[in-house]
Amino acid sequence: MALAGPEPGGALDRLIQLLARLPGFGPRSARRAALQLISRRESLMAPLAAALAEALDKVRPCSRCGNLDTMDPCAVCRDPARDAGVVCVVESVGDLWAIERSGAFRGLYHVLGGHLSAIDGIGPDELRIPALIARLGAPLREVVLALNATVDGQTTAHYIAAQLAGRGVAVTRLAHGVPVGGELDYLDDGTLAAALKARRPSAE
Amino acid sequence: MALAGPEPGGALDRLIQLLARLPGFGPRSARRAALQLISRRESLMAPLAAALAEALDKVRPCSRCGNLDTMDPCAVCRDPARDAGVVCVVESVGDLWAIERSGAFRGLYHVLGGHLSAIDGIGPDELRIPALIARLGAPLREVVLALNATVDGQTTAHYIAAQLAGRGVAVTRLAHGVPVGGELDYLDDGTLAAALKARRPSAE
Ligand SMILES: [Zn+2]
Ligand SMILES: [Zn+2]
Repeated sequence: MALAGPEPGGALDRLIQLLARLPGFGPRSARRAALQLISRRESLMAPLAAALAEALDKVRPCSRCGNLDTMDPCAVCRDPARDAGVVCVVESVGDLWAIERSGAFRGLYHVLGGHLSAIDGIGPDELRIPALIARLGAPLREVVLALNATVDGQTTAHYIAAQLAGRGVAVTRLAHGVPVGGELDYLDDGTLAAALKARRPSAE
Repeated sequence: MALAGPEPGGALDRLIQLLARLPGFGPRSARRAALQLISRRESLMAPLAAALAEALDKVRPCSRCGNLDTMDPCAVCRDPARDAGVVCVVESVGDLWAIERSGAFRGLYHVLGGHLSAIDGIGPDELRIPALIARLGAPLREVVLALNATVDGQTTAHYIAAQLAGRGVAVTRLAHGVPVGGELDYLDDGTLAAALKARRPSAE
């Protein structure tokens, strides 16, 4: 009953229940969002419905790097001005966006889709690590491990560094500057830019 | 650039910009919500797109009371078990939902769509007050003014009470119990139920 508002099971109720599942939303904020949508039918609700339908139809992971885009390869992979000699490995697309916002990186990316986790049963094959190995070879000269400074993130970075050792590619990590325990997507752009510039060779 | 994430102007960027306009959301939470939607394409994104499209197509204000529903009259107005002798006047559909959640009211509603506001240029005709006057006559015996305990809400209640005076209908207000300055939608259900049960005749 806590969610009760519009007629249970009706179109509005379903909309509220789904909005309540978005991160940061609960039943109350979902009700408010639904009312706001309906009160701005033409300026907000119709465009949002169209944008959702379009994203649902067109946005897919890039088959090369795992970034999300309406085209495959994605805009980053297609950009001839980017340095194909450096690939930055990130856990999530949100981290990729954070690094792009820093403006400090002009290479390509590789999105793992998470981190190694014994508890969650996530191993290398769940993480697009084989796909990363498959990208080795010319022109690739450096892999930047930009994983979260969490235990799982650093475990994942160690694992990848070991896999890449002796394969003719430099493996670097973000410099200290990333707070211990911090997640990339919460950093200000300047900190992230500094950490990228001061990146150092990776110890296994 | 603060919103930058996916390719500017692309389908994902548009989705994030629209999500960022929902109440309680900003650029960062909108980016997270978009990523969550895409990572739960079948279980969340597709149902939300469908629910939005359906609500956009079908949800309309009830022509009698202003409630939102897929049918007109709405489920409350159509319910023969509700007491058509009592109409509860509220500012918004969110307030109507809050009173329904309290379970303490079995009459009908009248949604004003806001409150009188000199600053915002909102007068009686913008508020469905004429439509409320038009509902007077048998079987209506009581109008409960359940407006927010804000200055504007109480000004609106005074104005409506004056309009209804001498027209053969009892005009009541929610009892004290609603905190001064409080908004109905933020009250716990028990407080709202108590305030409804102890409602008193309205002084103009
Ligand atoms: Zn790509
Ligand atoms: Zn109605």
